[in-house]
Amino acid sequence: MNPGPPLITLTTDFGTVDSYVAQMKGVMLGINPDARFIDITHDIPPQSILRAALLLPEVVATFPVGTFHLLVVDPGVGSTRDILAAEIAGHYVIAPDNGLLDPLCRAHAPERLFKLTHDRYWRNGVSSTFHGRDIMSPALAHWSRGVALEELGEPLDHPPRSLDMPTPEISADEVQGTIMYADHFGNLVSNIRRDDVRHGDRVPVIRLERAGHLRFRATGIRRTYADVPVEAGLVLWGSHGYLEVGLNAGSAAIEFNAGPGDALILQW
Amino acid sequence: MNPGPPLITLTTDFGTVDSYVAQMKGVMLGINPDARFIDITHDIPPQSILRAALLLPEVVATFPVGTFHLLVVDPGVGSTRDILAAEIAGHYVIAPDNGLLDPLCRAHAPERLFKLTHDRYWRNGVSSTFHGRDIMSPALAHWSRGVALEELGEPLDHPPRSLDMPTPEISADEVQGTIMYADHFGNLVSNIRRDDVRHGDRVPVIRLERAGHLRFRATGIRRTYADVPVEAGLVLWGSHGYLEVGLNAGSAAIEFNAGPGDALILQW
Amino acid sequence: MNPGPPLITLTTDFGTVDSYVAQMKGVMLGINPDARFIDITHDIPPQSILRAALLLPEVVATFPVGTFHLLVVDPGVGSTRDILAAEIAGHYVIAPDNGLLDPLCRAHAPERLFKLTHDRYWRNGVSSTFHGRDIMSPALAHWSRGVALEELGEPLDHPPRSLDMPTPEISADEVQGTIMYADHFGNLVSNIRRDDVRHGDRVPVIRLERAGHLRFRATGIRRTYADVPVEAGLVLWGSHGYLEVGLNAGSAAIEFNAGPGDALILQW
Repeated sequence: MNPGPPLITLTTDFGTVDSYVAQMKGVMLGINPDARFIDITHDIPPQSILRAALLLPEVVATFPVGTFHLLVVDPGVGSTRDILAAEIAGHYVIAPDNGLLDPLCRAHAPERLFKLTHDRYWRNGVSSTFHGRDIMSPALAHWSRGVALEELGEPLDHPPRSLDMPTPEISADEVQGTIMYADHFGNLVSNIRRDDVRHGDRVPVIRLERAGHLRFRATGIRRTYADVPVEAGLVLWGSHGYLEVGLNAGSAAIEFNAGPGDALILQW
Repeated sequence: MNPGPPLITLTTDFGTVDSYVAQMKGVMLGINPDARFIDITHDIPPQSILRAALLLPEVVATFPVGTFHLLVVDPGVGSTRDILAAEIAGHYVIAPDNGLLDPLCRAHAPERLFKLTHDRYWRNGVSSTFHGRDIMSPALAHWSRGVALEELGEPLDHPPRSLDMPTPEISADEVQGTIMYADHFGNLVSNIRRDDVRHGDRVPVIRLERAGHLRFRATGIRRTYADVPVEAGLVLWGSHGYLEVGLNAGSAAIEFNAGPGDALILQW
Repeated sequence: MNPGPPLITLTTDFGTVDSYVAQMKGVMLGINPDARFIDITHDIPPQSILRAALLLPEVVATFPVGTFHLLVVDPGVGSTRDILAAEIAGHYVIAPDNGLLDPLCRAHAPERLFKLTHDRYWRNGVSSTFHGRDIMSPALAHWSRGVALEELGEPLDHPPRSLDMPTPEISADEVQGTIMYADHFGNLVSNIRRDDVRHGDRVPVIRLERAGHLRFRATGIRRTYADVPVEAGLVLWGSHGYLEVGLNAGSAAIEFNAGPGDALILQW
């Protein structure tokens, strides 16, 4: 582990109007004064485990090896769900065991997978509603100072919980995917990855459908927004590696009145 | 005072779309290049002194002793209100004298209480609309470099202004409180604290009322959200120590159409 | 160039719900682990080059000389627009060539003006939709470590693109300006600067008009919000140096139902 000032990223659904995020930072700074924080986002829609889980592989792909990551989207706080501490692809992650690590673990088998059990690294007087502040933050701060994973908890004796994520249906002349979310720009991000589309040089016809009704139709996958006129729709590979429906200089989500759960269908 | 890189927290109603917050940071970095900033929130509702004032004790309770705190919710900017610089519970705070320090001062008697008067530690050409940038930020940055409080101003010759905060009405078989705000999750946070509820082991009946009309009714105080079914309401102690009305996996503010000023009544 | 830990400010229209901003920070930290980030804002309205361009001079005026600034509002990503790297007023700026530097360049002639062309300082596998992450971030991180501008690109062989910004019409007894935007508080910020109003000690009559209809009328320019009663309108010099219409303890944009494109007219 790098003994320099540790980088700690934070991903939560806490919003930015209350002091919840700040309280976690204060607790960590009290334990490790050298901590450097990077806020990934605190605007995960409340309790949206999927949205936070999808961010983590993007963050791991861009941050240096040795970065610590704290994810707190925790609708089961106070119940019996475990809290995970994992080493994955050289990164250090703490999160409740509710599916948050699923996409990252599918991409990289964890090097080590523990659960937090040793309360001497927790805050005195753990609340029943804010384990992010009272368990996860102090444990991560101690970890970032060099306390060994074996001191913080015990090896997990079951696989981490998986996400209930739809997977694309793939055949010789069709790929049928699902819109997972709309991003800040209104790009409609599907669950179709590059590996799902190995249909040679033929150009697919692509349909966006809500409840069986056509919302948008395109021929072929474009390279970038500027390849179509302003306010025209297009289908392209997003920077995250998923196929998305966009609109040049506008919001596809608004223009096509579409969103999570809608179908994106490619046919050859 | 710790001579290491100082921690400076910021709490404002400036929002995040303009450069106002960044201008304050730029001014401080010009004076103390080692400053490390933690944004508590900039989404305090415009001019909501109460909301910012309630955050400060939560921040002081979690951050290390020796942290600096800048609070700028300042509807009286350009008028004759004083600007306070205070040492409280080992923390260093600068804020306009408009009630922002009231809850913290009730919890901890200030060690030292000054007002900023020495303009040689202010920015050249102080504006009449942005004292956060032109007076408070440079004074705090100099303070964080070791300039003494006596250099920055003079002892305050009156008590800091108090907040117009409702207090619960308490009797032998009833506590009547008021909802102060809804947090990001829609939890309705009241002004009732643990010390207000010393009614033994009996289980209270609890009513949330708007203008005399019942909005929600519960029996007893729960431990955590997961103690009730999904989308059911409950009453519990929030992590901030106030009694709140919540909804498991949802927003109590939306579900019960309730908010600031509504009554929360416990009866035994 | 200061060899200490570099300060890097970020201004984008990426919003705060996705990982786009974090990905840029991760890429920069992988190249320069000492980078210190200050987020100016990520809430620039999507594709609003004007709004981001107006922020930059305010940031440069308050941050220390030697600060790096990354601006990514880039509707032309993937097209043939250049990416600029400029030294201006002792600051270091990278931004697409779409008008983002125009207001700053009008205030300060650039010391050096380059375009990024050397892809060995870019990320492997540059995407066609996210040059902020794949070109601008790595180039800026290398620059902040001391790589020379000449290594990153070539001198620009044309002037940077200008903004399509309205300028006030000025005569002996009238100044007619335009509202550029409403800030977080609902202050209506016009394009009229102090230099535009040199009409001696006489007191102007001021009108805010939308499509020829009067929305607000005032006599004279006030000093600060508290100079008028609560919820009354006023005209004053904003802290950014532009004339604005405000409302004491409220939103002028809401109260007067006015916004970008409306006319602000001073008559003597």
